[in-house]
Amino acid sequence: MRFEVNKDKLLYNLIIAQKALSNKTPNPALQGIKLDVFKDYILLTTSNSDISINIRLEDSSLNVEEEGSVLIPGKYFIEIVRKLDGQNVEMSYLDDNLLRIEADHSDITLNVLELDDYPNLVFKEKEDFIKINVRTLKTIIRQTAFATSTIENRPILTGVNFKIDGNALTSVATDSYRLSQKTIELEDSYDAMQVIIPGKSLEELMKILENNQDHVEVHFDQSRVLFKYNNVLFLSRLLEGNYPETSKLIPQEFPVKIKFNKEALLTAIERASLLSSKDGHNAIVKLNLRQDDTVEISSNSPEIGRVLEEVYPVDEVVGSPIKIAFSSKYIMEALKVFASSEVTVSFTGEIRPFIITGEYDNQMLQLILPVKTD
Amino acid sequence: MRFEVNKDKLLYNLIIAQKALSNKTPNPALQGIKLDVFKDYILLTTSNSDISINIRLEDSSLNVEEEGSVLIPGKYFIEIVRKLDGQNVEMSYLDDNLLRIEADHSDITLNVLELDDYPNLVFKEKEDFIKINVRTLKTIIRQTAFATSTIENRPILTGVNFKIDGNALTSVATDSYRLSQKTIELEDSYDAMQVIIPGKSLEELMKILENNQDHVEVHFDQSRVLFKYNNVLFLSRLLEGNYPETSKLIPQEFPVKIKFNKEALLTAIERASLLSSKDGHNAIVKLNLRQDDTVEISSNSPEIGRVLEEVYPVDEVVGSPIKIAFSSKYIMEALKVFASSEVTVSFTGEIRPFIITGEYDNQMLQLILPVKTD
Repeated sequence: MRFEVNKDKLLYNLIIAQKALSNKTPNPALQGIKLDVFKDYILLTTSNSDISINIRLEDSSLNVEEEGSVLIPGKYFIEIVRKLDGQNVEMSYLDDNLLRIEADHSDITLNVLELDDYPNLVFKEKEDFIKINVRTLKTIIRQTAFATSTIENRPILTGVNFKIDGNALTSVATDSYRLSQKTIELEDSYDAMQVIIPGKSLEELMKILENNQDHVEVHFDQSRVLFKYNNVLFLSRLLEGNYPETSKLIPQEFPVKIKFNKEALLTAIERASLLSSKDGHNAIVKLNLRQDDTVEISSNSPEIGRVLEEVYPVDEVVGSPIKIAFSSKYIMEALKVFASSEVTVSFTGEIRPFIITGEYDNQMLQLILPVKTD
Repeated sequence: MRFEVNKDKLLYNLIIAQKALSNKTPNPALQGIKLDVFKDYILLTTSNSDISINIRLEDSSLNVEEEGSVLIPGKYFIEIVRKLDGQNVEMSYLDDNLLRIEADHSDITLNVLELDDYPNLVFKEKEDFIKINVRTLKTIIRQTAFATSTIENRPILTGVNFKIDGNALTSVATDSYRLSQKTIELEDSYDAMQVIIPGKSLEELMKILENNQDHVEVHFDQSRVLFKYNNVLFLSRLLEGNYPETSKLIPQEFPVKIKFNKEALLTAIERASLLSSKDGHNAIVKLNLRQDDTVEISSNSPEIGRVLEEVYPVDEVVGSPIKIAFSSKYIMEALKVFASSEVTVSFTGEIRPFIITGEYDNQMLQLILPVKTD
C-alpha cells in the first residue's frame, strides 16, 4: 500500500471518522482506523460497539501507487496528521507491520494493528430508503434526543422512537419524567414503520451533519439503521423491544394556560435553580399562578436562602390559580429547544403532567411531570 | 447595611475578588466575600491561605442608605449577581443573618456567614514601594513562573526569586531540571533586596493585570508582598528561606551554537513528542546535530513507533556534531515564552545544561538539563 493525498482533506475526514473510534474497548482492534486504499479512492472505517462510520475519500490530490489495507492506531494517527506540516502526506506500508508517514521534513513510522482482528462490518444500502432534509433531521434530533434516559435500567428509554406513517415522521423520547415529541412532514410517503434509535448514536450523528440543504438517506434493516450523508455512511444498531405507548400520557384537556416570554421564564427559573433544595440531582422550583394572574417562580433551600421571581404572562391567562413544583433542569432543557420566543404552558392539574408548546414550533410538544412537595 | 449599585460594575469587581476565594478550606469563613459598605465606597475582601484581595468599589451608581459589613457565601453570591436582570442591584441586611438582594423582578434572600469568624487582614501600603509598568510585570511573570516546581518537597522552588539591584530587577525560577531567568530595567533605582514569591500567587495576579500602560506598586514586608493595581490590593505571602545560588548553574562557555526558526523547532519537537518513551510524565526527545550541519529531532517508543524530523538551522552552525536528549515538555514550554522568531540554542556538552536565548528577548535565558539515555 502506498499513496499520497492532501493532508487537510485527510484530516477533515479523519475527524469525522473519529466519532466512532473506541478509546476504551475490550477489543484493541477497535482502537484502529481501517484504511482500504483503492485506485481512485480510500475507505476510512471506524467502529465502537454502538456505531460505525465508513467514509469514501475521493480527491484530485489522491495519487495511489499501490492498493492495500491497513489498520492504524486511531488516536496517534489523528494526532500526527493534525500536527504535520506541508500540503501533502505520503503513506506507505512497510514490512513487519510498520506504516511510514512522510510529510515535509517529517518521517514517521507507526506500528500498525493486526488487520485480521478487525470485525467485518457491512454498510449495505437498501433500495428503498427514506430521504430527509439534513436541517430537518438535525432539528428533530435536537428537540427530542435530550429527553432520552441516561440510566440503563429501562434500556428502551435510552432510544428515540421514530414512527413513520405516510409522509409524517414522529419522533418521541422520554425518560419517564419528561417527554419530548416532534412530528415533521417528509417530502415523500412511505409504508408505516417504527424503530428505536439509541439517543447517543443520534447525538454523534448530529455532530457530522452540517447546516445545509443536503439530504440524508436513511436505510433501515431489522436491527440496524444506516444514514448516508454525502461521502459518509453512519451505521447504528437499533434498540430491540416495544416502545411504551406514550400518546396516552399526554393530557388532552387543559383548564389552565399561561403564555410566557420564553427568555423571561427561562432566566427566572435559572435564578431560582441557583438556590433550591435538591431532589436527587434535580433542583426543585415552584410555579404559582396567583389570583391577580401574575406568576411567581420560587425556590427555597433552608441552608442557603430563597429566591422569589415575578414573571408577567404575555397574554391573558386562561384558568384559575394553580401551584405546581418541578425539576428546573427538565423545564430549562425543554424551553431551550423552542424556536418560538413565546411559549404556552398548559396545565391539567397540580399533580398531572403539564405541556409546553410554541406557536412557531409546529407539531412539537414538551411534557413534564411535576414533583410532589408539601 | 443598605445600598444600591450598578450590577455590571459589582460583577466585574466580584470576578476579580473571586481569584482569592477559597472553595475548599478548613475555615468556612474564607468561602465568603466580605463587604464593608461606607458612605462613598464599598470594600470587597476575599482570602485563601496564600493570597488575599481587597477591592475598593467607588462608582457614580453607588447609593448607600446605611453603612455596615456583611460576609456573603461567595460562590452563590457571584452566581446570583451574574444571572440577575436589570441595571442596578439593591442589597440590604435583614435581621437573623439574612441578606436581601433585589433586582428587576427578583427578590432573593441569602443566609450570610458569621462576620466575627473572618480573619483580620491587613492590606498596608508602605511609604517606599517599587513601581513597575504593568506590561513589564506581566512579561516577567509569564517568562519565569512556569518554571517553578509544582511538587512540595523543596518548597522554596515553588516560588520565583525576585532580586533588585539598583534599577535592575532579575527574576529566576527553577524546578531543578530547568531554569528561567529574566532581567528588566526599572524606571527608578532602589536599595538592594531579594524576595521569593509563590509561583501560584503570581499566576493569579497575572489574571488580574490588564494589557495597558498603567503601573503596579509593589510594597514589600518581612513576610508579605502587596501589589497595588488601580482599585485592587493583592496580597501574597512570601516564601521563607534561602533561594539557591543559581548563577553558578549557568554555563559560560558554549562550544556549540545553533540558531533556529523558533516555530520550525517547536513543531518538530511537538511531533516527536507524540510518539516518545516517557520518563515519568515527560516525553523524551533527542536532538542530533549532524556532520552536514542539519539537525535531526527524533523520538522512539518501541510499542508505538518512531518520529524523525529534519530541521535546518537558519544561520551557520558554530561547533561540531553533538547528540543530546531532553524532556520535550521543558523545551516546548521554554520556546513558547520567546517573543523572538529566531532562537539560539547553545550547548556546553552532551550531559551539560544547555540554554536558549533570543535576539529580541533582551536579558532572558531559558536553561534545560538534558537527560541521559543509552
